[in-house]
Amino acid sequence: MMRAIATHPAARGLKDDVATIEIGNETLILTHDMMVQGVHWLVDADPADVAWKLVAVNLSDLAAKGAEPLGLLLGFMLGDGQWDRRFAEGLGEVLAHYDVPLLGGDTVGQTDEGGARVIGMTALGRATHMPLPPRSGALPGDMLYVTGTLGDASAGFDCITADLTEPQSMIMAFNRPKALLAQGRALAPLVHAMMDVSDGLLLDASRMAEASGLALRIDLEAIPLSSDYISLRGDAVESRIEAASWGDDYQLLMAAVVEISLPVPATAVGRFSQGSGLSLQYDGKPIPLPVSLGFEHR
Amino acid sequence: MMRAIATHPAARGLKDDVATIEIGNETLILTHDMMVQGVHWLVDADPADVAWKLVAVNLSDLAAKGAEPLGLLLGFMLGDGQWDRRFAEGLGEVLAHYDVPLLGGDTVGQTDEGGARVIGMTALGRATHMPLPPRSGALPGDMLYVTGTLGDASAGFDCITADLTEPQSMIMAFNRPKALLAQGRALAPLVHAMMDVSDGLLLDASRMAEASGLALRIDLEAIPLSSDYISLRGDAVESRIEAASWGDDYQLLMAAVVEISLPVPATAVGRFSQGSGLSLQYDGKPIPLPVSLGFEHR
Repeated sequence: MMRAIATHPAARGLKDDVATIEIGNETLILTHDMMVQGVHWLVDADPADVAWKLVAVNLSDLAAKGAEPLGLLLGFMLGDGQWDRRFAEGLGEVLAHYDVPLLGGDTVGQTDEGGARVIGMTALGRATHMPLPPRSGALPGDMLYVTGTLGDASAGFDCITADLTEPQSMIMAFNRPKALLAQGRALAPLVHAMMDVSDGLLLDASRMAEASGLALRIDLEAIPLSSDYISLRGDAVESRIEAASWGDDYQLLMAAVVEISLPVPATAVGRFSQGSGLSLQYDGKPIPLPVSLGFEHR
Repeated sequence: MMRAIATHPAARGLKDDVATIEIGNETLILTHDMMVQGVHWLVDADPADVAWKLVAVNLSDLAAKGAEPLGLLLGFMLGDGQWDRRFAEGLGEVLAHYDVPLLGGDTVGQTDEGGARVIGMTALGRATHMPLPPRSGALPGDMLYVTGTLGDASAGFDCITADLTEPQSMIMAFNRPKALLAQGRALAPLVHAMMDVSDGLLLDASRMAEASGLALRIDLEAIPLSSDYISLRGDAVESRIEAASWGDDYQLLMAAVVEISLPVPATAVGRFSQGSGLSLQYDGKPIPLPVSLGFEHR
C-alpha cells in the first residue's frame, strides 16, 4: 500500500529497511518499526523484554547500514500501570546498554474496549560510510555471509511457549536480541550488500538476491548453529531448514567477494550467480525449498 | 512515564512538542504522533480525512518551531482493504498538498481479535531559525497572540456527530486542519515562545505560562471567532470558553512583545506577568476557570 505513495528517492522504493536524508555533509538514516501485542510479542511476555526487543530491532536496521544511532522516538499506548512501569524499566536498561537517547515521542490512551496494545519506534542514525551498503548490491560470484548463529531465537520461542526456563542462551536470543552496531560499522565499507536477518535467512537472502537481480544458492550444511541449538534440535536437514526460515535472529547478512577477510566472524552460507531464484543444497545435493521461507508481513 | 527515561538534553525534558538533534551545521526537528481509532478519530470517519489529519498534526508541530519539513515515516496497521485504500488516497493528497515526501515506515497486521486501529507518524524537519522558539520563552509583559480563529474544529465535530453536512467550513476545520508551516517560519524569528493549539487554547496557553514560570491572564472577549462559529454558538462567555477549551485548532500560539508588528494575522488574547497561574477575564471582570481547560492526554 505504501509503496505507491512513497515515491521519493529517499524512500529507496521501500525496498530497503531504512530511509535516508542528506543534510549538510551527513547522511541520516531513519527507520520505523511497529509492534503489536499478540503478533510481535506473546501476551504474557515480560514488558521489559518487549521494550528491549523494540529498541534492538530498530537499532538492528541501523546496524545493517553501518549507521551510528543518534536517538529514538517512542509511540506508546498506555495500559495498566504495572505493565507500563516494567516496560519503562526495560526501556531504561536497553537505552543504557546501547547508549542511545530517547528523544521524545507520544503516549496515547487505550480505547475503552481495550484491544491489542501497539507500540511504535523511530530510530535515527548517521551514516558512517557512504555509499550505504544496499540490499541490492550483490554481484555475481559473491558469497553470502552471515554473522553468529541462526535459529537460537526460534528455539528460544519454543522453550518459552513450552514453559521451559532453560537453556537461557536460547530464551535470551528470543527475548533480548542484540543489535550488531559495531559489527555493522566495521562491515559496511567492505561488503556489496547488507541487511539484517529479521524474517528468516532464506526469506531475507532471497530478497537480497531478487533486489540484486541474481540467483542465489544456499548451502544448508554451512548454516551456523549453536551447540545449544544442536542439543535441542540436532543438525539434520530439517533442523537446518528450521533455523534458516525463522525470523528474529537479527544477525547481519552480507554479499561480499569470495576471498575477503572480514573484520567480524561470519560464515559463508551461499553464493550468488547470474540468473534468478533461490535454491538450496545439502552436501552438494539439491533440496526442495520449504513452503515458508520465513515470516511474511501481512 | 517517558519523562523519567528521556533525560537527554535533546528530548528537552519532553516539555516541548519536538525533539532536536544537531548534525553538521543543521538542527533537525523530530516529532512523533500516534492516533487511535475511537480516541483520535471517529470510527466512521473517512479514512482519507484520518490520513490528512495525521499528517497535518505532525507538520503542525514542525510549524510551531518554524521548521521546514524534510519527510515523514508512517507506522500503519493494515485492516480491511477498502479502508486502507481510501487512507492511501488521503495520504497521497495531503503529501502533495504540503509537498512532503513519505520516506518509509512499517506496516503491521491486525491481531485476529481485531481491536482499535493505531497509526503512528514521525515527521522530520530542519530548523530555519535558531534558537527555536521554545514553549518556555515568554517574558513578563509579553502578549499572548494566536493566529486564525478558535473553536471551528469543535463546532465541526458537533456537526459531524449530529450528522449535519453544513457548514462545510466547520466540518473541514475538524476533518482537514491546516499545518501553518509558512506562518511558523515567518514568526519563529520574532516571537519569544511558540507552540500549536492542539489541546485547547486555555490548556496550551497555561502550559506556555507554566513552562515560562509566569502568570497569564486571558481576555475572553478577545478570543477570535469565525462568523460561522458565531452563527452556530453565539459569542457569549460560554461560547468563548468552549472555543478556548477544545483542541484540534492547530493555530499557532505565541508570546511576543506588545508593540510588535507580526508578519501573519494574529490576535492578542492575553498577557503574561510575574507570578504563576492562569486567570480569565471578560470585559475586565474575572471569570472562573472552567473545570476542563482542554484535552488532557491520559
